Amino acid sequence: MILNPKGQIVAVARGDAPADLILRNAQLVNVFSGEVETTDIVIRDSRVAALGAGYEAAQVIDLAGRYVCPGFIDAHVHIESSLCTPPEFSRAVLAHGVTSVVTDPHEIANVLGLEGIRFMLDAAKYGPVSMYVMASSCVPATHMETAGARLEASDMEPLLNSPWVLGLAEMMNYPGVVSGDEGVLSKITMFEHLVVDGHCPGLTGKALNAYVAAGIQSEHESTTVEEALEKLRLGLHIFIREATNAHNLRDLLPMITPMNSRRICFCTDDRHPADLLEQGSIDYMIRVAIAAGIDPVTAIRMGTLNTAEYFGLNDRGAVGPGRRADLVVFSDLHDLQPEMVFRGGELMAQDGAIVADIPRRQPVRLRHSMNIRWEAVDLTIPANGTHVRVIGSIPDQLVTEHLVESARIENGAALSDPERDVLKMAVIERHHASGSVGKGFIKGIGLKQGAIAGTVAHDHHNLVVIGVDDASMLAAARRVAELGGGLVAVDGQQQVLAELSLPIGGLMSDAPIDEVRAAIDELITAGQQLGSPLHDPFMAMSFMALEVIPRLKLTDAGLVDVDRFEVVDLWVD
Amino acid sequence: MILNPKGQIVAVARGDAPADLILRNAQLVNVFSGEVETTDIVIRDSRVAALGAGYEAAQVIDLAGRYVCPGFIDAHVHIESSLCTPPEFSRAVLAHGVTSVVTDPHEIANVLGLEGIRFMLDAAKYGPVSMYVMASSCVPATHMETAGARLEASDMEPLLNSPWVLGLAEMMNYPGVVSGDEGVLSKITMFEHLVVDGHCPGLTGKALNAYVAAGIQSEHESTTVEEALEKLRLGLHIFIREATNAHNLRDLLPMITPMNSRRICFCTDDRHPADLLEQGSIDYMIRVAIAAGIDPVTAIRMGTLNTAEYFGLNDRGAVGPGRRADLVVFSDLHDLQPEMVFRGGELMAQDGAIVADIPRRQPVRLRHSMNIRWEAVDLTIPANGTHVRVIGSIPDQLVTEHLVESARIENGAALSDPERDVLKMAVIERHHASGSVGKGFIKGIGLKQGAIAGTVAHDHHNLVVIGVDDASMLAAARRVAELGGGLVAVDGQQQVLAELSLPIGGLMSDAPIDEVRAAIDELITAGQQLGSPLHDPFMAMSFMALEVIPRLKLTDAGLVDVDRFEVVDLWVD
Repeated sequence: MILNPKGQIVAVARGDAPADLILRNAQLVNVFSGEVETTDIVIRDSRVAALGAGYEAAQVIDLAGRYVCPGFIDAHVHIESSLCTPPEFSRAVLAHGVTSVVTDPHEIANVLGLEGIRFMLDAAKYGPVSMYVMASSCVPATHMETAGARLEASDMEPLLNSPWVLGLAEMMNYPGVVSGDEGVLSKITMFEHLVVDGHCPGLTGKALNAYVAAGIQSEHESTTVEEALEKLRLGLHIFIREATNAHNLRDLLPMITPMNSRRICFCTDDRHPADLLEQGSIDYMIRVAIAAGIDPVTAIRMGTLNTAEYFGLNDRGAVGPGRRADLVVFSDLHDLQPEMVFRGGELMAQDGAIVADIPRRQPVRLRHSMNIRWEAVDLTIPANGTHVRVIGSIPDQLVTEHLVESARIENGAALSDPERDVLKMAVIERHHASGSVGKGFIKGIGLKQGAIAGTVAHDHHNLVVIGVDDASMLAAARRVAELGGGLVAVDGQQQVLAELSLPIGGLMSDAPIDEVRAAIDELITAGQQLGSPLHDPFMAMSFMALEVIPRLKLTDAGLVDVDRFEVVDLWVD
Repeated sequence: MILNPKGQIVAVARGDAPADLILRNAQLVNVFSGEVETTDIVIRDSRVAALGAGYEAAQVIDLAGRYVCPGFIDAHVHIESSLCTPPEFSRAVLAHGVTSVVTDPHEIANVLGLEGIRFMLDAAKYGPVSMYVMASSCVPATHMETAGARLEASDMEPLLNSPWVLGLAEMMNYPGVVSGDEGVLSKITMFEHLVVDGHCPGLTGKALNAYVAAGIQSEHESTTVEEALEKLRLGLHIFIREATNAHNLRDLLPMITPMNSRRICFCTDDRHPADLLEQGSIDYMIRVAIAAGIDPVTAIRMGTLNTAEYFGLNDRGAVGPGRRADLVVFSDLHDLQPEMVFRGGELMAQDGAIVADIPRRQPVRLRHSMNIRWEAVDLTIPANGTHVRVIGSIPDQLVTEHLVESARIENGAALSDPERDVLKMAVIERHHASGSVGKGFIKGIGLKQGAIAGTVAHDHHNLVVIGVDDASMLAAARRVAELGGGLVAVDGQQQVLAELSLPIGGLMSDAPIDEVRAAIDELITAGQQLGSPLHDPFMAMSFMALEVIPRLKLTDAGLVDVDRFEVVDLWVD
């Protein structure tokens, strides 16, 4: 006779079988009732069996009045932005109390398609946090780039069957939704019995109504209270985001009321290693929210129960009988610093450090993603006029200016002019060895010698390089390719000053996160040695090829005037 | 090319296609944000396309500031308790603003098994309200009765595939859950990816923890704030109930706080025609809640969005783009009287009366449910001692007393003794023609002549009869059988005073609800003519065979001592 596995936990709850662990004298943050109540938390295997006194267990920890809340859930994160593998990312956030994340693998999907998504699904199965995957909705982002893959609705159908796939990831093609594009609508239809995440910065009025009417259920791009409330009132769940690049948390906290907080969740979207290691993740957002005056239980709910309910994850997001024993122990309700983090009943982290023995599993081997026909790569820009369009990079913004500058022409070719900070930029197609190279100029990066190059170039992730002379640019780009993808800085003598290998799709390192973070610090220092005044010229560069954000961007297909949504000529006269 | 049907509503929302209907100048109760906002509601086909100004439509209704809220949802109702078919029940509640109900068909399931459930599912498809079905979990209620069917987990598996089945209905066998009964746990496991409703009156402490740990998700039997809060804190959603028999609303309103209200829903469980027609349904509960001081938006949420979210009904429970245009229009936020009820964009009811032309569809023909071997039916109780156990019926309660009285014996048989109000009661098995008859005595019904009989006898619904003499009892019982099931009162000359035919499973009439209500009134009057002081002797009788509620009950298997949970002898000495 096969016994139902529920039988054991029911017996423990009933008091007829011993528990594995009891956390005694906890002040439980009860996200169901909104109260903080003193109780014992009774754990059997990976689950909470019961709350209350009178139970026995093999192990008892007396919390002496410390607080316990559910493990945190990140509603939307691109793990690739940590430049680390999912297990390394997981170790970092787990130490901060994050026990579940919902990830959109659209960076690696743009490089490796379904193979990339399956890589993330595989990581989801064995990682130290519960990693749920959303099916990437916009691969590629537009027709004005060459991505490594293309995912139509029919390609995505197999994902519907995975228990780790929760729905459709952020539908960034909001013009397509609003205009009723058939391909876009069929993706939504395919996933709408699950959840469908949105992404529609600044959309308002009738267009926003159309976007919601199509079946979009959440949104995380709001930057003002007014924008977020318009979306919430139409039925979108609002994910408040605090990323490395986009800081929306403090701006949006004033939107939260006792009546609407249930429809608000927290997410990090994109976080770099330094932020993950120093600030944290969802725990950081909860701390900031509470410090700003949000009721602590409400703040914790936005990082736990609200997110679990939105995604239908009924086995977590709260501490109660039958739910997963994903728990965070802390001492100060007004400065929530995770002191113990339990996942599935096991103590995983203590005082910010992993204490469990998490096996470092070799990631599934992915195919090499660097595929460049170097003999076709020529960075020369033949002179074809007197003035060129120039991307005007703005510090800490993804939006650029559309500038026109006079070209510096020598021997019939347009060159970088570091004195005016007009640098050559190239995007070398690296997926299909097509040999296509987009070429242009950019202002605002500030290099005085050498070049920087990398394969992190949203969202197509071709090889992007910016430099003072062609020899340095080629040296940097070739070194990136040798690394199997990565980030490289070379000086004016083509010597490599710093580098980070990102062999997993050209996006992720296989090294531990602290090593990755150290390598990034060296790259930033190198960029500054080369003359860049930017905090992080590599991060700035990574968004200069993203042709869905205004105004002028460069992809492998050429310069894109985002306002006109078309490829334009480099030369204006 | 097959066009995605979303395209039309998206075009309307965008402003590129005309709407069907606009409700202008509405004060919308926005259950997402918790606000009341003035807006226009734009409808296309069955859906809301947009909220806001600047749209055009074929039909425009200026609400001039009247309120609009989402159509109400009943979280848990046994439609059979209305003694009407689902379409008739639906007409009654629709006029009160209820546009969706979640029903547990366990009465008809106890009579006809899956055939009965399929009858309800069929009704769900074509009725004038959206009728969702929960798979009945406890058929039969116990081993001490003969029901018409038995549903094991394996029998219920086909129900998983119906889009109209939302989960497992109230798990009344809480002793089975708590003790870890394998059959019970497998039913829960089978449905827990959906929802699993509970029923555990008075359960507390460890037993309640065990019940929740098994996977139960809601509960609707709480009668005190303390009981309900203990359940809510452990994670159960609380359905506050206001039935015809069980009045819990006013007692439980004090439990509601801004922090916990999201986990509270409203349900009616069992309502008779008179209550449905005069008080209403969920609208009545909302009115009572608001009058008692609950914030109106919070009260409306408990009858709309909260219930939709619990059951995963993401297309309703709120008014917003893409959701169903199920709407209630009213004038006073503090006395919510539905003036217009729209379902799927169509005006269905106005000022309490159905105005839409709803075709009266012939219900699917069910097999005859009366199957009695009359030649084996003998109501004689041979004298076998001097004292008998007697069911002590208590007015307006389902709980009875376990009494012992001296028997009135004539010619070797025990007889009714109307002077002491000790009446003979019999439960005649009517499903399998087994010929078994449970016989006993009852006090508190008060008949001075004649008999009353009926096939509504929770939960097995055998033919129950109470009377002063065997001839009247037999006449009443036989008349019930002739009707194909129903309720009958006969006088001491065996003349039928009043009757109601319930040919659908012996539980439901096929007549309009006002005719059913009139027939019930006549039956009650007849009961009073026969000497009963009770408000409704038929309703009282219908619970005297329910052997899961203490203390002494009579089934076709005999007298059940519910405290001992076993069949006991009629004679004590």
